[in-house]
Parts: sequence; C-alpha cells; structure tokens
Amino acid sequence: MFVAVMGYGTVGSGVVELLYKNHDSIVKKSMQDSLELKYILDIRDFPNSPYKDKFTKDFNVILNDPDVKIVVETMGGVTFAYDFVKKLLLAGKSVVTSNKELVAQKGYELLCIAKEKNVNFLFEASVGGGIPIIRPITQCLAANEINEIAGILNGTTNYILTKMITENAYFDEALKNAQELGYAEKDPTADVDGHDSCRKICILASLCFGKHVYPDNVHTEGIRNISLRDVAYAAAWGGVIKLIASAKKINENSITVTVGPSFVQAHSQLAGVDDVFNAILVRGDAAGDVVFYGRGAGKMPTASAVVADVIDAAKHTLKKKNFGWDDAEENYIADYLKQTSALYIRGTADDKSEAVKAINARIGAIRILNIADAPENELAFITNPAPEGEIRSKINNINGFGINNIIRVTDY
Amino acid sequence: MFVAVMGYGTVGSGVVELLYKNHDSIVKKSMQDSLELKYILDIRDFPNSPYKDKFTKDFNVILNDPDVKIVVETMGGVTFAYDFVKKLLLAGKSVVTSNKELVAQKGYELLCIAKEKNVNFLFEASVGGGIPIIRPITQCLAANEINEIAGILNGTTNYILTKMITENAYFDEALKNAQELGYAEKDPTADVDGHDSCRKICILASLCFGKHVYPDNVHTEGIRNISLRDVAYAAAWGGVIKLIASAKKINENSITVTVGPSFVQAHSQLAGVDDVFNAILVRGDAAGDVVFYGRGAGKMPTASAVVADVIDAAKHTLKKKNFGWDDAEENYIADYLKQTSALYIRGTADDKSEAVKAINARIGAIRILNIADAPENELAFITNPAPEGEIRSKINNINGFGINNIIRVTDY
Repeated sequence: MFVAVMGYGTVGSGVVELLYKNHDSIVKKSMQDSLELKYILDIRDFPNSPYKDKFTKDFNVILNDPDVKIVVETMGGVTFAYDFVKKLLLAGKSVVTSNKELVAQKGYELLCIAKEKNVNFLFEASVGGGIPIIRPITQCLAANEINEIAGILNGTTNYILTKMITENAYFDEALKNAQELGYAEKDPTADVDGHDSCRKICILASLCFGKHVYPDNVHTEGIRNISLRDVAYAAAWGGVIKLIASAKKINENSITVTVGPSFVQAHSQLAGVDDVFNAILVRGDAAGDVVFYGRGAGKMPTASAVVADVIDAAKHTLKKKNFGWDDAEENYIADYLKQTSALYIRGTADDKSEAVKAINARIGAIRILNIADAPENELAFITNPAPEGEIRSKINNINGFGINNIIRVTDY
Repeated sequence: MFVAVMGYGTVGSGVVELLYKNHDSIVKKSMQDSLELKYILDIRDFPNSPYKDKFTKDFNVILNDPDVKIVVETMGGVTFAYDFVKKLLLAGKSVVTSNKELVAQKGYELLCIAKEKNVNFLFEASVGGGIPIIRPITQCLAANEINEIAGILNGTTNYILTKMITENAYFDEALKNAQELGYAEKDPTADVDGHDSCRKICILASLCFGKHVYPDNVHTEGIRNISLRDVAYAAAWGGVIKLIASAKKINENSITVTVGPSFVQAHSQLAGVDDVFNAILVRGDAAGDVVFYGRGAGKMPTASAVVADVIDAAKHTLKKKNFGWDDAEENYIADYLKQTSALYIRGTADDKSEAVKAINARIGAIRILNIADAPENELAFITNPAPEGEIRSKINNINGFGINNIIRVTDY
C-alpha cells in the first residue's frame, strides 16, 4: 500500500521521518504487507533531502495514482487543503490531516464525502498534537454521555501564562520570550487571541456532542488583557489563570462553547499543565473526569498522531471507521451568557465598603480577594455561580464601581 | 446482538446499569440493529433486582446459546474465570473482562485462542478503571516505539500516601481510614503490598513491549515501610512519594519491570495525582511523555470501560482487532538491579561527616537532605543515577552507617 504526504513543513517532514524510522513496526501494526511513501507534494525544492526522489509539485500526480490509497495533508490553511482533500476523498482515497482549521471549517462536509465514498477522513493530530484524544473520545469513552470537555489547547498562550505565573513576567515580556524561542509566531494573533484554541474546541465539541460547531459561533477571548494583578488574585483565590477552551451541554438540545482565560483550582490536573504542554479534560457520566496530557504541538509529537491515523486508515481499508458528526443546527449553540459559572471580577471602587454593600444587594454574597500592593481603591472578588449574563447585567452600572476585568471561574 | 454478563458484583452491576441507561447511544455506536442483555450469571439471588428475569446460575446456558455473541466477565479471580472465558472463546464468542488477575496470568493463552477463533478478547477495564489506556497504547501511540510506561495504578495505596503527605497521618491511621471509607479491603495485602499494581503493570508491559510479563517475574515492593520521615525527606528533595509501577526498555531485547514506592518530582503530572485517582505516563520516541489521568476504580468508571469494549467487540464481529502480544521469553525481563536510577537512602550514622566521606569515596557525590526534627544521627541523601545493584552493593557494609530505607527516584 502506498502513501503520499502533502506539505513538507514541520509536521510533514516529521511524518516522513517517522514512516522511515519506525517502518517495520508501522507496517506490522497496519496489517499490510507493505506501507511505503510514494510522493511528497511541496512547491519548494529540497535538493539535499534524503527523500528527494519522492518530491512532486503536481497534485494531480497523487490524485491520479491508483496505487496511493492514503494521503497525509499537512499543508495547513483552508483554501488549497480543502480543494485537494475534497478531490482525494471523492477519488476514493483516505485522508489523514493535522489541519485544525480545515476540520473546524469543513469537517462535516468532508466527513460526509468520506462516508459516501467509504474511505477514512482522520484527524487525531488536529487537536492536542501527540496527545491521543479524538480516538479515546469516540472509542474508549463511547459508553459515556459526555457532559463537558475542556482543555488547555494552545501551547503558546500556556507558555506565556506560565511565565506570568511563575516568574512574574509581564505579558509583553513573556510574549517576546516565546517569540524568541520559536513558540510564538511573529504575528501572534491566532494564538494570543484564542483563535487556535477556538478551532480545536470546535472539533472536540463536534465530536463529543454530535453536531458541527463552527468557529464563528464560539465566543472567543484571548489573554491580552490578563494583568499580573489578575494572576496574583488567582493565587490568592487558590489557583492559576489558564486559557481554557470548553464545551458544555446545558440541556438535551444545546451546548455552550467558549474560549477564554479562566481561574483553575490549584489541585486541578489542568493547573499543573505548564509551558507548551496541553491537557484535555473530558467529563463523562460514567467515567467521571478523565484528563489527557502531553505535547500539544511540535514536529514529532504531531507526526506521531498523524502516523497513528495512517496505520488506522491502512487497517480499515475495507470498512470505514464509524466516526463523525451531523450538520450544524440553528439555536443548538446557546449564547455563552446563559452558561452558569462563578466569575472573578476586578474593579475600582470610590468607596470599597459601599461598593461591597451595593454588590451584595445585587448578586448576594461574594468572596473578596486580597493581595499585597494592590491599589487602594481596587476591589476584586469571586461571585457565586449563576448564569454569566445575569451576573454581568446586575453588576453593571453600580454607582461608584467600575469594572476592569472579568474572568470565568471553573469548577475543576 | 445479545450480551451476557458474568458476575453481578460492583463492576458487573454497573455494566448492566450502563447498558440500560445509555442504551440508545450504545446501540448506535456499536453499529448494530440492537445490543441487548440476555443473561446475568451469578450464584446469588437478586429477587428485587429490576433485571431479575435475566439471572441464571448455570454457565452452560450462556455457553450454549448461539445468540450470545459477547460475554462480559466481571467475576474476578482466576480459577473459574479462566475456565469460563476459555470455553467461551473456544465456542466463538467474544469476551470482555475487567479481571486484571486473569489477564496478567492467562492473557497470552487467551489472546491466542481469541485469534484462532477470530473473536475478540478485550480488557480495557483491567487497568486504570475508567481511564482509556489499552486502546490509546495500541492505536493512538502506534507510530511510537515506547521506551517506558509508568503509573500510579492502585487507588488504595495512593489514598494512603496522600493522607500521609497532606495530613501527616501515620500509615496505620491512613490505612484504617481507607478501610472505613471502603477504599481498602479488610485484608489489604493485595493493595498495600503492591500485588494489584503488579498485575496491572504486567498487562501494560506485555502490551507496550510485545511479550507476556508474568507477575512472578516482577520485583514488587509495597508501601508498608514508608515512614512520615521519608515523606518529609521527599518534600525536602522537592517531590512526593508515590507507589509507581513501571516497565522500561533497557535494550532491544530486554526490559525491567518493578513496583515500588518512588520519589516523584513535584512538577510531574504524576505528583498531583491524589486520593484514589490513577494516572499512567507513556514515554514514546515521537510523542514524548503522554499522561492519562482519571478514576482507576469504582463501579461506573470501570463499567464505562467495559461497555466501551462491548461496543468495540460488537463493531468488530467480522474482523478481529489486531491486538495482543507474544509468549514470555527467558531472560527477556532483566533483573531490576540492572535498572539505572538515582536512589534515596536513609540511614543511621555513628558519625555523619565520616559516613558522608565514606559514601562519597564509594559512590561519588550525593545530595544530602535535611528536615526538621530528624534524629541527630540520621543521614538521608540522594545518589546520582547508576545501576541500582551497583549502588546497593557499594553502599552496603560501610563502617558506622546502617541503612534504614531505600527508595527509587524517578526522572519524571
């Protein structure tokens, strides 16, 4: 059986490396007589690559070669990847991708084509890099009704937050440091503003709850507005701030999906996830909380997830994997303001005891947080859990109290 | 398709409950028109059970019913379970079990029969309760060569150690407390002396490295000899003591497998695993360290793993899953003393500075640990990593230094 790899960047070159390095055990596990790389598609030249005879610039060579049964897409982006993947599936080839944007935007359509053509469209590597998560959700936790899935899905922001928490670094410093180390792009928007996490939670939410969730429908906040005082208040509360992407069932017919900074309790398995590591918590009705932890990005971890999918696709050439979700549905994703959560609120009060009285009158008891070196008139507190929109509207327009930041408080 | 459950104890009754509770989604995921419980085998009477018409005391009813394609074994023990499971597999039925003792003792033989008969023998629930681990190892991490697997596999001992660490409870007190809460048996030997962890690491080691590992071949230590001073020294070192079961490749043809108390660094994902929770770390050549965390025991978590296997068995009625390992091999499991590790050593010295000099002369630099309230003549330290047997023999018989405890120090 022959395989092609499209896109010889970080992940694609890792896939090629792994297919050669662990060749024999990969062939054995795939239950095929052979599993060989036939083409690498890339527009660039790699004259010194040990695999130089495999390169092609012509997509049609792969598309029209009947020997190629499995194609790996590690090009990234949507435009070309979508066009190519669609054509490959329609031509009856299985596709394995690490492209979260493609799956988040076009997953439903591509899964439908794969189903119709009885081939596999697999994307374990699109979420959590080397962490097994797609397959455990669909298989190992299959006996569960999943009530919530939440995770630290972006290594860049987690690295920045870790620097802020453990070294008291300012956001700008930490970002610069991450850029120097190659953990953050020159334009860090996709990471820092939560878009990368958003795409990943879309995939996880679609899988866990059965209907396609599009990035446009997800309330997404980044970490730019997190100050070192917020970090200190989180410590005073007994936890840390993490960028959490989460999807939660709120009733039989709807879910909420959000990405945003969140308070996480110190004893939570998510609190200890530092630097560029990722972790995903799945809350099942029978299994309880299960957490998956590991390297969420990087060449070889991501390549290992891609190649595991290649093995799986090779094993399932005759019978497609039962795997996928339904089309998106109107009103299925509820407004995030309907989600019940405790909130951390930091603001400025003309008169603190008056402000606390007024807040108590509106939303009941609060837990006031104190840190050293806070400005005299700063008031920070944790509310009781309630629908977020309710708390926000009640707390708004309190005379003599101005809000500076609001952060969700998780219960894990 | 019909299913039978053998053994209506904690796990078995959870399986029955789950098969009814999440019936529709389970049937859908199993890709069958139906998936119904036909029999429950138990020698006891359950006259008030809502499933009372399903009970039978006669194993042959299940064995001889051609409609029953999948049988769940949750009886525990080896004698009867082995006899029954073997007959069922030989009769062409798939078997799903949560019985770690059965798999650790008879896994190879039963897997061979399953292969020959083209049926499935699945045991996700035998390790880690509700934590997905067997399938992720065989599938998601299939592109990796696994170098090590290690974990906290026993909730009882982890509960006791957590009490010792966080509440300074003595071992006996903590054990009594665990017994009162139902976390420990009246006879706690299997848990406290490491036998339960041993069976589970046998299964994981067999799976990761491809040859059957029998419990008799595993060096197993329990936690009875852990004192509160050891706990304090671990904190002084910067970590905690956990009962770690581990299997490690030491070269292409051999592995070491051990169960014993171990120092784990505070920032490790295993260090924060408290109370009855379990976690398993898998070290792959491509994925790096991946950790799976969750409830390692209990009715519904374990039942959820069993039912996931039932779904999988139902999906793979035509094609057996490629899954298993080879027979045990002589000299394949190396003496644990050959394993390279740093060691924590606590002893009594007639003259501490003389003892340190003598120790340095034998094994080079050591890191001395200090805690408050230690006896005047106590000397505790961490060695550099070296083959364990080498350190032990060198450190033995030092004039004026008597060893009281030795604990392995992990590098995760």
